[in-house]
Amino acid sequence: MIDASVELRVRFAETDAMGVVYHANYLAWCECARLKLVESIGLDYVKMSTEGTHLPVVEAHLNYKRPARFGDVVKVRAILKERPTAKIKIEYEITKGSTLLAVGHTVHVFINNEGFPIKPPKDVSQIFNKAFANL
Amino acid sequence: MIDASVELRVRFAETDAMGVVYHANYLAWCECARLKLVESIGLDYVKMSTEGTHLPVVEAHLNYKRPARFGDVVKVRAILKERPTAKIKIEYEITKGSTLLAVGHTVHVFINNEGFPIKPPKDVSQIFNKAFANL
Amino acid sequence: MIDASVELRVRFAETDAMGVVYHANYLAWCECARLKLVESIGLDYVKMSTEGTHLPVVEAHLNYKRPARFGDVVKVRAILKERPTAKIKIEYEITKGSTLLAVGHTVHVFINNEGFPIKPPKDVSQIFNKAFANL
Amino acid sequence: MIDASVELRVRFAETDAMGVVYHANYLAWCECARLKLVESIGLDYVKMSTEGTHLPVVEAHLNYKRPARFGDVVKVRAILKERPTAKIKIEYEITKGSTLLAVGHTVHVFINNEGFPIKPPKDVSQIFNKAFANL
Repeated sequence: MIDASVELRVRFAETDAMGVVYHANYLAWCECARLKLVESIGLDYVKMSTEGTHLPVVEAHLNYKRPARFGDVVKVRAILKERPTAKIKIEYEITKGSTLLAVGHTVHVFINNEGFPIKPPKDVSQIFNKAFANL
Repeated sequence: MIDASVELRVRFAETDAMGVVYHANYLAWCECARLKLVESIGLDYVKMSTEGTHLPVVEAHLNYKRPARFGDVVKVRAILKERPTAKIKIEYEITKGSTLLAVGHTVHVFINNEGFPIKPPKDVSQIFNKAFANL
Repeated sequence: MIDASVELRVRFAETDAMGVVYHANYLAWCECARLKLVESIGLDYVKMSTEGTHLPVVEAHLNYKRPARFGDVVKVRAILKERPTAKIKIEYEITKGSTLLAVGHTVHVFINNEGFPIKPPKDVSQIFNKAFANL
Repeated sequence: MIDASVELRVRFAETDAMGVVYHANYLAWCECARLKLVESIGLDYVKMSTEGTHLPVVEAHLNYKRPARFGDVVKVRAILKERPTAKIKIEYEITKGSTLLAVGHTVHVFINNEGFPIKPPKDVSQIFNKAFANL
């Protein structure tokens, strides 16, 4: 299992008229933690993306348990439990202090700039393999 | 089964650097169709919300099958299959012409302005009961 | 003077914890009216953008006078007063019924896919010239 | 003059189909720097906002000079040049390393929970007065 966490402060821009964070905005937070995770094992995701290999979301799931509010500091933890194959599944825990706010997951596939599914590039596979070999 | 659809034109604001609609933005589209659905059976959701009864999302799920792009006209269909109890589950189909772009669902509970779960207000229950009785 | 208007219903996603539309979201609305305006004179902006000519915003200005709220129907009017040269300035009026909510403007330049400023493509210039000639 | 800066990493969620940050998203960044600024002089803005005093944006202006891209680390500096009266004007500089990406300003007024303009609360005025007295 590989994991990484980011801490984010809730922006006013992220709230809605219920006075809490709008549910869709958690997905952008998950993305921040996901980026941290893949960078933590040595994958230059920004470079990979700029060069035309992407990992779009093909499935997203969130369970919301407690609201987050403007100014809160939330921790978003991304967890990769299994070595990616054609698909990558990443799980998330969003907490505020010791309070669990939400859990969820996303599933990703590799695509090229034209949007077609591709095998994971060799160097990318090697990074994941090495990360799991080191556990 | 009760359903309602909205047609939306993809805004440039909704796209991302992959040249397609950012995955989180589908949730705002689902909200438009959900509003149309509850309004179609006579629920003044905006008034209900202004008066302090809300239906926040406690679960959201999306499967993305084909991308949507800037300028596309997409149709978002919200479907309520079962009479709501304490929870309401709404399913979604997002299409572009005859192409299925995404499917998903959200689950909602009734809360008051303080964020506490409440029973559905009597008049709201009556609206749903009447809608299902009329099927 | 060339103008075009769109009517939009305020999404819950566009509100913030003050219970009104978050100020940045007006810019996405302006974009909807701007697209309508250029399409109304025969410019296929989506195609132009897909083919690599863009009109990014280099200046944006908004004055907010009255708030918009969830469920409101707002009208966004885009106005092109002068024939574009290297720059295009578009003004906006955002209203709710007879109430003026906001006014503003954006300034745009032509760029290519690499982000470099370019002269307006000939066919695009012709469309604007024709539109102003027909006034 | 009082100023404060935040460093932010560009989220993929903030990009658009031109491959750069969507122009409206700079306003949310400005908000992060503005919050830092008022907190740096001792104003608990989140508490003030929760208790019903708000500083909504009544004017926003941005000039975009260079694009920001996914993964970039940008610095957003908020600058308060003059002691606030009924209005507060805050200026912004957004940079990436030594490159100026954008400049702008926002103007704010004090309002209560009902949306009516109010005088700045006494304790809030004192905080600004003290901050300017200490320069």
